[in-house]
Amino acid sequence: MPNDRPIDARPPIAAHPPIGVFDSGVGGLTVLAALCARLPHEQFVYLGDTARLPYGIKSADTVVRYALQAADVLVRRGVKALVIACNTASAVALPALTERYGALPLMGVVEPGAAAAVAASRSGQIAVIGTEATVRGGAYQRAISRRQPHARIRAVACQLFVALAEEGWTEGPIARATAERYLSALVPRASAPAADAVAGFVADTLVLGCTHFPMLRGAIREVMGESVRLVDSAATTAEATQVLLQAQGLLRPASADSVAARSAACASDAARVRLLATDGAERFAAVGSRFLGRGIAPSEVELVDL
Amino acid sequence: MPNDRPIDARPPIAAHPPIGVFDSGVGGLTVLAALCARLPHEQFVYLGDTARLPYGIKSADTVVRYALQAADVLVRRGVKALVIACNTASAVALPALTERYGALPLMGVVEPGAAAAVAASRSGQIAVIGTEATVRGGAYQRAISRRQPHARIRAVACQLFVALAEEGWTEGPIARATAERYLSALVPRASAPAADAVAGFVADTLVLGCTHFPMLRGAIREVMGESVRLVDSAATTAEATQVLLQAQGLLRPASADSVAARSAACASDAARVRLLATDGAERFAAVGSRFLGRGIAPSEVELVDL
Repeated sequence: MPNDRPIDARPPIAAHPPIGVFDSGVGGLTVLAALCARLPHEQFVYLGDTARLPYGIKSADTVVRYALQAADVLVRRGVKALVIACNTASAVALPALTERYGALPLMGVVEPGAAAAVAASRSGQIAVIGTEATVRGGAYQRAISRRQPHARIRAVACQLFVALAEEGWTEGPIARATAERYLSALVPRASAPAADAVAGFVADTLVLGCTHFPMLRGAIREVMGESVRLVDSAATTAEATQVLLQAQGLLRPASADSVAARSAACASDAARVRLLATDGAERFAAVGSRFLGRGIAPSEVELVDL
Repeated sequence: MPNDRPIDARPPIAAHPPIGVFDSGVGGLTVLAALCARLPHEQFVYLGDTARLPYGIKSADTVVRYALQAADVLVRRGVKALVIACNTASAVALPALTERYGALPLMGVVEPGAAAAVAASRSGQIAVIGTEATVRGGAYQRAISRRQPHARIRAVACQLFVALAEEGWTEGPIARATAERYLSALVPRASAPAADAVAGFVADTLVLGCTHFPMLRGAIREVMGESVRLVDSAATTAEATQVLLQAQGLLRPASADSVAARSAACASDAARVRLLATDGAERFAAVGSRFLGRGIAPSEVELVDL
């Protein structure tokens, strides 16, 4: 039983095991924030592999190897479940993670994102944007097709969105022009040359298949138009995680301890969340604050070696 | 003596030891191209640490650790000299590399770049652009000040240039707007708000302190104006490497072997260059071709593990 695993004793985060959340960097903090909001009585250990980010331009073999090493760290901390907040790792490394940690509840972001996209789309024309590795691996495309075999799917790698989100340039003309360049082929536009458009494809749903991309929601929305549904897997992943833990009787009771009760109202309180990174506590704090939606002090970030 | 070291025997690149060139990824291929052009009788082993790039957003400790591991690979291949083509690694890891490989001729890109900037500047107002880690570490600033104590120096981190160069978006409105946003404070502009400008600072020389940045030369030139001197450390590093090897009697004689003689005219012939990477031969070949200035076949790229 996963929750029979001993918790790393120095210093313990709680009497009840925390949920492990893993990402290549700070992008997954959007998923952590959604988890905190939906599961107010849970505690979390978040690991960002900042020494080796980004995963999105790396080969599948390397992403799998890095993801297993990162998951090992969280499992050694006694987590009762593992959420893979990184789209690239979810898309590429979930089979290997399942194989190694069969007994531990595992949740990626791809399946919840695909389910939400299928539920949101009326026309069955769904676009997916992600990193190079996510798009190349095809996991979103397969997960959507499995649920809706007649869906028409277009996937576009939007690598520069990652750098824009990290730099904090999420609004303004550069973000807008970048979104236009990546996405214009997905929407019908009078101005677009015919060669740019994909014959007859008009997305009614767009999956934001990278944790960085919700930061650029405004620019993406401007290009895609108001009628397109934007699917952000953070909220749907939090919901799916709740369902999974509930089904296995692993949710923490509301009265479990006073820390959780006190901080339940605060979505990502430092008392409920332990932050680990493989490099650069200061950069993690500075950039991560934008993703988590609250200030992070560098002293909150514990450096670990993989 | 460095050239007494045995060459890794399987398969040998040449009877005479090659020069090792190291970068975090493909950007250093611009330095390799300059080295190939200036040293037509030499052979080279280039290592790009593509599994862990980019170095430019990582902490000094991590960059030092990665650089030492990468250098170890090249030294085990019996190189007679080591060129650190990565600005971030040159700026941060050169002391540690010198300590470990004292006997081996070592060349970074920062000192040659600083020397070229001081030689080029008439006003002594020099701007440096680089990655976050290069700018934060201050190596260029120190190297320039040492040569010209009264120089006024402004350094700006231009992290997004890296992503633009990797994506191949080196021209057009997005590259131009990004250059404008990063660089406008370095040049006097009627349109710029006073708060943006650095009081009285007008750069007459700009150091392109990242191997990716020469790819954006056009956009940078547009913003900085025609009169500003752009210093690209690739050519100056190749020149400094030649001087260093000449002084130590390590240059390969022109008649050393027929392979070199045959390919001397071809700046970066596959017969003279062995390419190593830590991840993704296909991406290395695709993106690297732009930096090397000739096509690279994925089969040319040997994957190594650090």
